[in-house]
Amino acid sequence: MHSLTAKLIAQHLDKSASITLHKQLYSAIRQCILESSLVADSRLPASRDLAKALQLSRNTVLSAYEQLQAEGYIYTQRGQGTFVNKTQPRNPQLTQHELTSSLLYSSEVQLSKRGEALLQHASSLPTQWTALMPGAPDVNAFPHILLSRIQSRIARQPKLDQLIYSQHGGSTRLQQVLAHYLASARSVHCEPEQILITEGIHQALDLVTRMLCNPKDNVWLEDPSYWGTRAILRMNDLATHAVKVDDQGLVPPAQGHLPNPRMIFVTPSHQYPLGSVMSLSRRYHLLSLARSLGAWIVEDDYDSAFRFSGTSIPALQGLEADAPVIYIGSFSKTLYPALRLGYMVLPKTIAQQLKTAHCELYHGGHLMLQDAMAEFIQNGHYASHIRRMCKLYAKRRQHLIGLIEQHLGKHALGSYNSNAGLHLILNLASNKDDIAIAQAANEQGILVRALSKYYLHEKRVKGLIVGFANTPVEDMEKAFSQLLQCIDNPQYTEPEH
Amino acid sequence: MHSLTAKLIAQHLDKSASITLHKQLYSAIRQCILESSLVADSRLPASRDLAKALQLSRNTVLSAYEQLQAEGYIYTQRGQGTFVNKTQPRNPQLTQHELTSSLLYSSEVQLSKRGEALLQHASSLPTQWTALMPGAPDVNAFPHILLSRIQSRIARQPKLDQLIYSQHGGSTRLQQVLAHYLASARSVHCEPEQILITEGIHQALDLVTRMLCNPKDNVWLEDPSYWGTRAILRMNDLATHAVKVDDQGLVPPAQGHLPNPRMIFVTPSHQYPLGSVMSLSRRYHLLSLARSLGAWIVEDDYDSAFRFSGTSIPALQGLEADAPVIYIGSFSKTLYPALRLGYMVLPKTIAQQLKTAHCELYHGGHLMLQDAMAEFIQNGHYASHIRRMCKLYAKRRQHLIGLIEQHLGKHALGSYNSNAGLHLILNLASNKDDIAIAQAANEQGILVRALSKYYLHEKRVKGLIVGFANTPVEDMEKAFSQLLQCIDNPQYTEPEH
Repeated sequence: MHSLTAKLIAQHLDKSASITLHKQLYSAIRQCILESSLVADSRLPASRDLAKALQLSRNTVLSAYEQLQAEGYIYTQRGQGTFVNKTQPRNPQLTQHELTSSLLYSSEVQLSKRGEALLQHASSLPTQWTALMPGAPDVNAFPHILLSRIQSRIARQPKLDQLIYSQHGGSTRLQQVLAHYLASARSVHCEPEQILITEGIHQALDLVTRMLCNPKDNVWLEDPSYWGTRAILRMNDLATHAVKVDDQGLVPPAQGHLPNPRMIFVTPSHQYPLGSVMSLSRRYHLLSLARSLGAWIVEDDYDSAFRFSGTSIPALQGLEADAPVIYIGSFSKTLYPALRLGYMVLPKTIAQQLKTAHCELYHGGHLMLQDAMAEFIQNGHYASHIRRMCKLYAKRRQHLIGLIEQHLGKHALGSYNSNAGLHLILNLASNKDDIAIAQAANEQGILVRALSKYYLHEKRVKGLIVGFANTPVEDMEKAFSQLLQCIDNPQYTEPEH
Repeated sequence: MHSLTAKLIAQHLDKSASITLHKQLYSAIRQCILESSLVADSRLPASRDLAKALQLSRNTVLSAYEQLQAEGYIYTQRGQGTFVNKTQPRNPQLTQHELTSSLLYSSEVQLSKRGEALLQHASSLPTQWTALMPGAPDVNAFPHILLSRIQSRIARQPKLDQLIYSQHGGSTRLQQVLAHYLASARSVHCEPEQILITEGIHQALDLVTRMLCNPKDNVWLEDPSYWGTRAILRMNDLATHAVKVDDQGLVPPAQGHLPNPRMIFVTPSHQYPLGSVMSLSRRYHLLSLARSLGAWIVEDDYDSAFRFSGTSIPALQGLEADAPVIYIGSFSKTLYPALRLGYMVLPKTIAQQLKTAHCELYHGGHLMLQDAMAEFIQNGHYASHIRRMCKLYAKRRQHLIGLIEQHLGKHALGSYNSNAGLHLILNLASNKDDIAIAQAANEQGILVRALSKYYLHEKRVKGLIVGFANTPVEDMEKAFSQLLQCIDNPQYTEPEH
């Protein structure tokens, strides 16, 4: 009988040179079982016998048997041998009914409610770089070679703790360098241990809201505000309340006007997107209000590095000892977005907890890159790149202002545009459809965005958010004239009543 | 009057060379206002006059005024001049009452419920690398120079779309290379467009659960299972149901025994942590079950690359056309954890939606690294590194098995230990306290983990999860003898009843 089985198997062997012997054997036996040439509970030859019959090594046979057993085709009984399993693997040919039985897998896939809401408000642009895009730095101007050289040097002899998951909220060297840098550049006061290195501002916002807010908790958010913050608040099921903004930043609401917040989200150094700088008096007011309400302030200092005149105002974080402020920043605007490096400065009372949570939820890494960044900052490359960019962006900003004033008049410039940041607000008359205008411009590769889309409440102001940082002066004129055509297109203007 | 004000300001000027002139002037005026030497609504000198009086350029004065205005210290009235503001910034000296008024900022910070739960079950080890750590590859054996060379070459002349946020779920080149690689290595069948590059398995799990599950949805999870999966399910408020595991992997529960799941989480290629390989018949059964229940299968193929004998079983994803499977993998085990690169293979029906959601929630980047990895795989470096590591780990595994059998006997080896993966299960008697033993070993730098902690339900099996991949044969003996001392310590054995 055994020799018969061996013959049967031999007939099924596909002796292609490209397939290893044990895989040939495995496939042959599997096929015999699937075709029922070998039936359930029939005994297979002992490995030694089969090896001899097929002129294979015994190890080859053992490997094939092991694989078949792992997959459930065969089983062994101690002292009795190897047998074909009763439970034959079912045929991979599914009935059409099975394939289409559930709507779940059809084109109408059911997303979660939070998922639906996220996609319904999705605001990432399909293109991430062309003329006049707000928030985009000039990524070509970055000294890639300098950073890359430091990285290669580190990668030649990496240390063990650069290769494993981060254990202390990121590279301790970058934490030290950043603590020093943020103290002098932004008047942020902290110990290196309070710094948590993140993948960017989105991850920072996600972490603090998940760790410090329960679903349905009230939070205050500037109106208008960054779409990314709104997306994360929505995903984490918070009740977001819009707070008005004026030329001094967020206007603290009158007592009792809004439900007490668990968190207050602000962009004091350059309100996003309107551009006002929060005044010092307003900052002290906000700190005092947060303390009295028992709320955390989340200070998003996203483009504080670019201020083209005047000194910058100290960050909220550093204005008072132990301020109830979580300070977040990133290198996406100062260097380039795909770098994915950001940081949070955490109050001492929650630093360790949030670092542990970060590890549990996201598992940090990229430590060679973080150490390279520490060296890049320490060597002065970072500060000198920012100085160079400030000069470049100031020129581009002036040029854009000139174009706006020349073609649309001074009143077209948003009144809160402070001399800072990477974009300007261009006002539109209330009968203009800024969304349609932005859409038409986007289709021509002019990546301005519609201001009205950045509001939470109904009193939306019409306008365009126009970036200048990524567009060289020599390209700006053409891009702007294309934009003008979209603005002037009567199709996007409602007739006066 | 103006000359008096100018004199007052001059008296407050700190002419240190290290401070810019406009900052000197800004500080002087600010101090006058804070001291009330300049009172509310008093007029400041015109910029031209003050410049003349102090022998400064007019631009310097304008800068200082601009800054003071931005901070709310002064205001201008058109045609009338510049005045000291009524709203004086409040004194930074807070009362003790204000500082301590809220418990929120004290040492008893209130975390969210999800945050509390996360930390309560926190399982990341404070140390991420010493002897016998499960799941840790030998990060020193990785050819860092090869990858670094490719990276430097790319960084010398980066392309624009490597520097901005990722728009297509990651590097299209890496998606293409991975689609090809996974087809041949894991029998995964997909178009490159179905691949989403992630920061690792945690991010992949987070994204699918948030996007496809509502809070309180039922999900099935192998028991025991990976703590990281449990942490993310808990954070996203899912109702997790434990499913038994045997030597063929997850045991499909009898009909009606568990609530119908929205998602089923499995580790078919090497059950984590028990080590069984899901048989082919079980795989078909699970696919059929998922279809009939309308559930998604999440296939975590975390260490499928390391199989020391036999061919590996095709991934669930590739067993049927359009299988309801989300396949996830990472380079953390094959290369090194801090690399932070992983991938998901998404069903076509949800690929675009999940890629958009990834962009909205996390903003992808690291595209130069991803392109470098594509080249690393394409050049064959990845496959040859895995081959080399397989040989190395097989030796280490054999050595560890030898030590266990020699000192504790054959029965001490977990019965599901398949010839794969980066760890083994060492059985302990039920009167042993595996948590205390692991704790004692950890304190000596032996990073084994207690098996009973990986269970969701009460019938916890006692044992240790022992890694072998990161521990050279020559170091294993010493580490193992230290571990033996902990196991034999009568302190960690309950007396027999």
